[in-house]
Amino acid sequence: MKKDQLIIFDTTLRDGEQSPGASMTKDEKIRVARQLERMRVDVIEAGFAAASPGDFDSINSIAQVIRESTVCSLARANENDIRRAGEAIAPAPRKRVHTFIATSPIHMEKKLRMTPDQVVEQAVKAIGWAREYTDDVEFSAEDAGRSDIDFLCRVFEAVIKAGATTLNVPDTVGYNVPGQYAETIRQLIERVPGSDKVVWSVHCHNDLGLAVANSLAAVMAGARQVECTVNGLGERAGNASLEEVVMAVRTRADIFPVETRIDATQIVPASKLISQITGYPVQPNKAIVGANAFAHESGIHQDGVLKHRETYEIMRAEDVGWSQNKLVLGKHSGRNAFKSRLAELGVVLESEEALNSAFAKFKELADKKHEIFDEDLQALLSDEAVTPETEHYKLTYSQVTSETGEVPLARLTLSVGGEEKKAESTGSGPVDATFKAIESVLNSGSELLLYSVNNITSGTDAQGDVTVRLAKGGRVVNGSGADTDIVIASVKAYLNALNRLHNEPAKLNPQEGV
Amino acid sequence: MKKDQLIIFDTTLRDGEQSPGASMTKDEKIRVARQLERMRVDVIEAGFAAASPGDFDSINSIAQVIRESTVCSLARANENDIRRAGEAIAPAPRKRVHTFIATSPIHMEKKLRMTPDQVVEQAVKAIGWAREYTDDVEFSAEDAGRSDIDFLCRVFEAVIKAGATTLNVPDTVGYNVPGQYAETIRQLIERVPGSDKVVWSVHCHNDLGLAVANSLAAVMAGARQVECTVNGLGERAGNASLEEVVMAVRTRADIFPVETRIDATQIVPASKLISQITGYPVQPNKAIVGANAFAHESGIHQDGVLKHRETYEIMRAEDVGWSQNKLVLGKHSGRNAFKSRLAELGVVLESEEALNSAFAKFKELADKKHEIFDEDLQALLSDEAVTPETEHYKLTYSQVTSETGEVPLARLTLSVGGEEKKAESTGSGPVDATFKAIESVLNSGSELLLYSVNNITSGTDAQGDVTVRLAKGGRVVNGSGADTDIVIASVKAYLNALNRLHNEPAKLNPQEGV
Repeated sequence: MKKDQLIIFDTTLRDGEQSPGASMTKDEKIRVARQLERMRVDVIEAGFAAASPGDFDSINSIAQVIRESTVCSLARANENDIRRAGEAIAPAPRKRVHTFIATSPIHMEKKLRMTPDQVVEQAVKAIGWAREYTDDVEFSAEDAGRSDIDFLCRVFEAVIKAGATTLNVPDTVGYNVPGQYAETIRQLIERVPGSDKVVWSVHCHNDLGLAVANSLAAVMAGARQVECTVNGLGERAGNASLEEVVMAVRTRADIFPVETRIDATQIVPASKLISQITGYPVQPNKAIVGANAFAHESGIHQDGVLKHRETYEIMRAEDVGWSQNKLVLGKHSGRNAFKSRLAELGVVLESEEALNSAFAKFKELADKKHEIFDEDLQALLSDEAVTPETEHYKLTYSQVTSETGEVPLARLTLSVGGEEKKAESTGSGPVDATFKAIESVLNSGSELLLYSVNNITSGTDAQGDVTVRLAKGGRVVNGSGADTDIVIASVKAYLNALNRLHNEPAKLNPQEGV
Repeated sequence: MKKDQLIIFDTTLRDGEQSPGASMTKDEKIRVARQLERMRVDVIEAGFAAASPGDFDSINSIAQVIRESTVCSLARANENDIRRAGEAIAPAPRKRVHTFIATSPIHMEKKLRMTPDQVVEQAVKAIGWAREYTDDVEFSAEDAGRSDIDFLCRVFEAVIKAGATTLNVPDTVGYNVPGQYAETIRQLIERVPGSDKVVWSVHCHNDLGLAVANSLAAVMAGARQVECTVNGLGERAGNASLEEVVMAVRTRADIFPVETRIDATQIVPASKLISQITGYPVQPNKAIVGANAFAHESGIHQDGVLKHRETYEIMRAEDVGWSQNKLVLGKHSGRNAFKSRLAELGVVLESEEALNSAFAKFKELADKKHEIFDEDLQALLSDEAVTPETEHYKLTYSQVTSETGEVPLARLTLSVGGEEKKAESTGSGPVDATFKAIESVLNSGSELLLYSVNNITSGTDAQGDVTVRLAKGGRVVNGSGADTDIVIASVKAYLNALNRLHNEPAKLNPQEGV
């Protein structure tokens, strides 16, 4: 039986980036987009062009480098948003505008303050504007999960006539359960005239832990596009996880009438890259990409011996890209080996200086750490030092002591906009002392919400990857830093977060009404 | 409409504890069991009595203190296992034996090396032995998800006749998808004679991300018990998460024909307690219990302002126990305040020495940390020092220095079985230096698999909760340590892991064949 293709629409760069503090720089977004293309994602939602000039620029840059995947920008159903989206994606060989408007009574009344008639009219206009830029136009009925089905039919019929080619039925608040959600999709496909000429899409949130199940139930009911994110990243409890959707469809090929184009061996590298860039850790008991997901294979054995491992296996670790964690470079690797390994990772450093700076950091790391893995290289690239122009705050010297019975003490020298400043403080621990020393000079007034460290690879000389989440004046940023010295990594992460607060202007959230 | 009760069977202490390195001490298990009872879990699977004398003892101790919840022990379908289980749970007012045997062709042939007839016969005998100890007997058909339905009907009919009162249909390898799994349950209930006199139960694994969805689909098909774990802990990608099952049923009361007895406000405290004890972090984008799950309410705002928050809310954070994180104790709190707060947390320290030792640690912490939260108290109790008799290895002094341009150096004094040993080493960072110093003296030969740190509360003076996962000779243990000084917390965690390797004998895994 020839199977239908299930279109994988990845929104890690848009909905995923809306997670508190997960915002990424342009360079990081390009690295993620390249990895998504390598994984053979069909559509990459690269951002929300009207959110800020920075978002526009990131989408535009991604549109310039991505050749195989379709590049998409989100846009509210208004002319300005759609023109910004259309312009941002213009350079891409395959491009899509994704416009949306809310259709549930509560959203129309409280957020949009529009009547149902006005909503239909606005949606139709939006498709018209979008069609000026591309024939590939997606329409989303925001909060469809809580919308009236008759009204949904009416809106969808109107946008199909106006030229929308993909119709998305989001469960914006994660309220749906599989049987009922599938029934909604089935009815829409049955009732909406012209439904056979478009692709039906789903976008599920995980508030009740059902995002993947709802997406798959919708596929059984006829949906042929799933919107998802790597690691299930996204607002609140996140979106449907790409890796779970893809592997469920593949592992249960006996049940699902569809197949994806995804190269599953790129799943684990994508998961690690996105976790590192956003500072969002993946819990060990996460399906597919968690450290324990294939515990039997990865050298971790239970107490007691398992007979016949295959009796407990439904997937193989190597099929999703585990155990490709190979030693790639060491102390004696040269500049060319370094450069070509980066190219294999899909990383192209834009200038000779950036390459030199990255190579210098690599040499420094190789002095301290015996074996350098791909993950170490990714961390090194995440290091803000590769793009020094964005580093307003920088660490130039540190000395930290901690002794039983004594109060921990940190002495730092910081560069602030090029000017050297000395700082000193005690604290309840060495990390606290360094953070207090920084605040004694910078007085950022930000609040530390979360602090976490994960080792990038195993072994005691591994780099610690520190994430610091700061809040200031209603804004939240994550900073990350990696180093074999956990205190240095912590300082880097803290300064990275402060640099983000310093550099990034506040941006518009797409949910902020039309 | 009067709703059926959905029985919540928590197996955090059994299946959850089988996660690599998640093994808990007896005291920790008792604290978890008390929290589960406070949450009004119907059945607590306290362990697998035949696994080791330590497991037996833990179950027996839990059976002595738990009054409301049913206390259950797992047992393979053999006489010795069942007698151990029956004896372990004897003190409990409500008690259950849970016996299992595999029913799938691959498991019967490769693991059990038994014919189907022998399997039925063994299952019936097992129920007979179990009934000698209690009328509440559960039978599981291991790997039911891949078993032949006719054979399942035959086994279940036989065990009902033999006196089993709960029949469990586990998806042991996480291979099922909701529609098909629900159909299995529906057919079993329809076809097995006597099915209306028993409770049908499900036990789903999350390898494809569908454990909760499969459980809920089964409930729609007639199952009235769900086996689950807090935080979805469990082997590989874990089990169905208790919090997601409970909140889906509650939030979608319009769809589900059942209700649970769970006090949902105890969910977040349970999640934090179990995460802290097992060293298994919860990712921020985890449904219900992740730090972002209710990001709108918890002081974390998106860039941009959300109009009308209620348009994006389907549950309230306080309903599941968020924001109960209150300042409970400070520097000037006395011994009685400390003791009574512990009692409110359900913790009873067994001896006067244990209380004194814990109080001394509390005072020490209050000197360094301004505000002491419930989470800090839980961490303090997790500290091995509260039960000093189990501490073979102990830190008595440390001095660590780290300076830009210099190699980090650690000088430690350890107590090894009461004897003082000095250790010194350099390393690629202060944590690496301390671990190398420890290994220079102890030569444990263990391998560091994972290292992670999470702050227990927010603020720069928060305690770091460090988890270290070590592997040695095929065994895996997690060690944890908390301190305001991250280097000290790391040393505590490392020594805690070594103490566990030293103290805990290898134990039997229930999957190790009958």
